[in-house]
Amino acid sequence: MAKIKLSEISTNAPKHLNKNQCELETIDMAIQIGQLQHKLYAERKQSLLVVLQGMDASGKDGTIKTVFADCNPTGIDTYGFKKPTSEEIAHDFLWRVHKRTPETGNIMVFNRSHYEDILIQRVHQWIDFDKVEKRMKAINAFEELLEFDNNTKILKFYMHISLDRQEQKLQERIDDPLKNWKHKAEDWEERKYWNQYMEAYEYALNHSEIPWHIVPSDKRWYRNYHISKIVLKALEDMHPEMPILKHDESQSV
Amino acid sequence: MAKIKLSEISTNAPKHLNKNQCELETIDMAIQIGQLQHKLYAERKQSLLVVLQGMDASGKDGTIKTVFADCNPTGIDTYGFKKPTSEEIAHDFLWRVHKRTPETGNIMVFNRSHYEDILIQRVHQWIDFDKVEKRMKAINAFEELLEFDNNTKILKFYMHISLDRQEQKLQERIDDPLKNWKHKAEDWEERKYWNQYMEAYEYALNHSEIPWHIVPSDKRWYRNYHISKIVLKALEDMHPEMPILKHDESQSV
Repeated sequence: MAKIKLSEISTNAPKHLNKNQCELETIDMAIQIGQLQHKLYAERKQSLLVVLQGMDASGKDGTIKTVFADCNPTGIDTYGFKKPTSEEIAHDFLWRVHKRTPETGNIMVFNRSHYEDILIQRVHQWIDFDKVEKRMKAINAFEELLEFDNNTKILKFYMHISLDRQEQKLQERIDDPLKNWKHKAEDWEERKYWNQYMEAYEYALNHSEIPWHIVPSDKRWYRNYHISKIVLKALEDMHPEMPILKHDESQSV
Repeated sequence: MAKIKLSEISTNAPKHLNKNQCELETIDMAIQIGQLQHKLYAERKQSLLVVLQGMDASGKDGTIKTVFADCNPTGIDTYGFKKPTSEEIAHDFLWRVHKRTPETGNIMVFNRSHYEDILIQRVHQWIDFDKVEKRMKAINAFEELLEFDNNTKILKFYMHISLDRQEQKLQERIDDPLKNWKHKAEDWEERKYWNQYMEAYEYALNHSEIPWHIVPSDKRWYRNYHISKIVLKALEDMHPEMPILKHDESQSV
């Protein structure tokens, strides 16, 4: 496997793509994703776990809103992992994550995830590198478990933005009253660790057994388009099928 | 590692031990276990997970009652894994188990456990051997996670009884009105799979990274004595310490 170096990967949209065209396609894909989600829910044999990771303001919330716009909320859940509670801290790092894994038939979107436990925790040196390695191994075993034992397809996205674009988006949260609610002073603090975060991300991207999708995310429209395409393709490949009653099965109704 | 063969291991108490003497010592050990549990709870830095596995009537309930007789219920929990619910079945086999792992400071006793998923499920061929192997690997990774990431000491006991002794105890449940509540017709059905269970247990015993304690369990008094000794030794080795305030820390009160 070629080693991923984030500094060598563009954060921008490919030049050959047209914004309006991509936005229209993204809306169309959301409808198809909604249709497949309905089948997945009816079938109840497999599940989809979408993991969204990225620096602050990389667009995790916006992605969820756009990509899954046409899903029935009954069959899709999202969970945002925040600072652990005291009960969560009293357990291993995967304890609170495992609880939230999707049941068969459902889609679960993680807004941040178990990867934070080898990202923020590593960057601030709350854990040493030996623990990072052990956790990475545990993450691989955990994801493998979900796949082989519960038929869970796992899609992981690293939303790749530039330092400049982040600044611009954080600044918007200050300048635009309707975005004020998203402003957090600590996001500006966290920015100072940018290089350490990139190093921690590169480790995770390079040591995950289930590969990551690295999504150039400076442009919202391209980010949404890119992720929708991958989600749609994954759902198509899962071939969810509506359970159709055979004639004799309907007799008991 | 020498391969464990259950047919070569006695289910009976060692001849040189005296029943009354052992029973007295067991009571004494329960008091010491209670004292260490109190320290563990006060310290809140580590936890103990006790896994009890064995054929029906091997004495799992009785063991819990005797060994942990002097623990404060606030700091110890027990959980009996029964037939999975529909929500549990919609997740991987470790999902319901992970939820029940002890938080730091606590003791958790599993009455049956995640091992059932490679025992009863294998014996009745609800899963194929490929899945048994994958689950065994997942179990090892899971137990390792609890140890390295949450300071959980894991003690696993296989309660080894003979086919004859089981029959006798199941019969008591029919003959003794005060034991009637424990009678289940399906236990007599399950007995027919004895050899397959022994084979499944041997696989688990031989492929676990954290080794098992095999406890000759035909005699209740010896079973309790044997397990109490191991639990007590483990708690002693954990060296739980009462957090004592230093003089200047008490100023803020």
